[in-house]
Amino acid sequence: MARLSDIHDFDVALPGGGSVRARLAGRAEGPLVVVVGGISADRAPASGAARRGWWDWAVGPGAPVDAARFAVLAIDWLPEAGAGIDRPVTTQDQARAIAAALDALDRPIADAFVGASYGGCVGLAFAELFPERIGRLVAISAPHRAHPIATAWRGVQRRILELGLETGRTDEALSLARQLAMTTYRTTEELGLRFGGAPAPAAIGAPHPVCDWLIARGEAHASGADARRQIALSDSLDRHAVDPQRVTCPLTVVGFTDDRLVPIDDLRDLARRAANLCRFVEAPSVFGHDAFLKEREVVGRTLRSALSPLPACPEFAA
Amino acid sequence: MARLSDIHDFDVALPGGGSVRARLAGRAEGPLVVVVGGISADRAPASGAARRGWWDWAVGPGAPVDAARFAVLAIDWLPEAGAGIDRPVTTQDQARAIAAALDALDRPIADAFVGASYGGCVGLAFAELFPERIGRLVAISAPHRAHPIATAWRGVQRRILELGLETGRTDEALSLARQLAMTTYRTTEELGLRFGGAPAPAAIGAPHPVCDWLIARGEAHASGADARRQIALSDSLDRHAVDPQRVTCPLTVVGFTDDRLVPIDDLRDLARRAANLCRFVEAPSVFGHDAFLKEREVVGRTLRSALSPLPACPEFAA
Repeated sequence: MARLSDIHDFDVALPGGGSVRARLAGRAEGPLVVVVGGISADRAPASGAARRGWWDWAVGPGAPVDAARFAVLAIDWLPEAGAGIDRPVTTQDQARAIAAALDALDRPIADAFVGASYGGCVGLAFAELFPERIGRLVAISAPHRAHPIATAWRGVQRRILELGLETGRTDEALSLARQLAMTTYRTTEELGLRFGGAPAPAAIGAPHPVCDWLIARGEAHASGADARRQIALSDSLDRHAVDPQRVTCPLTVVGFTDDRLVPIDDLRDLARRAANLCRFVEAPSVFGHDAFLKEREVVGRTLRSALSPLPACPEFAA
Repeated sequence: MARLSDIHDFDVALPGGGSVRARLAGRAEGPLVVVVGGISADRAPASGAARRGWWDWAVGPGAPVDAARFAVLAIDWLPEAGAGIDRPVTTQDQARAIAAALDALDRPIADAFVGASYGGCVGLAFAELFPERIGRLVAISAPHRAHPIATAWRGVQRRILELGLETGRTDEALSLARQLAMTTYRTTEELGLRFGGAPAPAAIGAPHPVCDWLIARGEAHASGADARRQIALSDSLDRHAVDPQRVTCPLTVVGFTDDRLVPIDDLRDLARRAANLCRFVEAPSVFGHDAFLKEREVVGRTLRSALSPLPACPEFAA
């Protein structure tokens, strides 16, 4: 995917104290699209010169979120890494931070807001808090509130991280929490397809391939991660609550039927109750909650369609 | 449920060293039924004078496994609690221990074998190892081999327990591992019904009801539990492998469609490939993998039906 050449990073002081680090990329004078993702995502959905973006196929020049046409705004989630975390953060806090970034750019309105997973929850919170500042919202695999099974799994992850912090084994706890998270991001079907063919390791002590994969993913994630920040973001998902009827901007809801963390019934409920539903896209995926990262066809098509009515230049903006 | 009055506990020395603690209950001269359950179960499925059994509604005088008609044999799973665990245990090891208990009773044949979860896996291993020593097998929520998603979840539990052992925080690790296990035993639907109605706890620091429930269940399980023994039993499930075609005794397979640990497709595969399938019972349950403990109607009916052809007295045994 084409890389961005036009990247503008900036810090925005927040009214409540602290600051948020933001990035404006793409065509600065084009319609503005906010793009935010899961709790592990950052201000770089598109690839820059130095690093691959977390959603590089979806955001960039010529991509479904076309950086040759749009100004793309993204932020690093609160709380700031390494900062003293004196209280958990809410999806409303993140929405206010994005509003502050828009203020700093002197762009009062997000012409479109594209959020996946946690980013979609923040989009719903933004739409509820600032109905006059959002043109349209695409919320992918993002409910108006957390399902108890998701809270159950995330709660165990938080308590693993707390045990790691208390015992000085933070890296192992970060890895273990990530391993558990991976089991909730993916589906039974995918793991069956990947690991079900091999014979059971009968020999005592022989490794289980699925465990080796999880451990590798866990360790890759753990290096350099901030356990307290992860606890805060995880908790934020479980306190998330938006009233669908107060989401009044044009809304596209995208859901995947085998998502263990966000049961499709909850997205059907969101779509049914939203004040101004444009489109509800429901698709199967073996990738479950990670489908927004993997299902390029359906996600890409939906993004292009949702953004296509956006004027190419600001003089045509509504 | 009526209590047992006739209980005979005994220890059986095993050929490979060590011993297994077993219980014969019910009508000693009746047809013999082996009854074994999950990795947390023990030799007491039926209630005795001192303690409630883990399957008290299913096993006892007048119950579906009728202790007024049958001799009920059960064991404490290997490895013995507190014993030095020098190597993991297999479902075949458990099957051999049951065979040794039968030898000790001078009852060469289990007229029926009823196993749920791990106990059903042991039943399949017993049927494969000792086809001439089993009259019929009822295997509930028990596959011929573990699905990778189940191995993934159990592997994380084992690594939590190992971290607890290494840091001297074993009780907390036992609780955390149990909390994770509970999320896999139950369904999204059940947790939604139990905990989905309450508003999201917006107040920072306010507890999540589903987490409080998990923590209470985890702590109740942790007290007195043996982490090393749990690791061995958990690992045993992930090394379990039986060839369905070598299970030649009459077989009843019972499965629940929303069981996250034992996907129903795996039980359909077992039923399709078994050499001598009597009956395949597939039912829905909000209790998922725990359905064998909760679904009294379908499980009780299936047990009565599977055991009804058993002669009431040994003189009529085949």
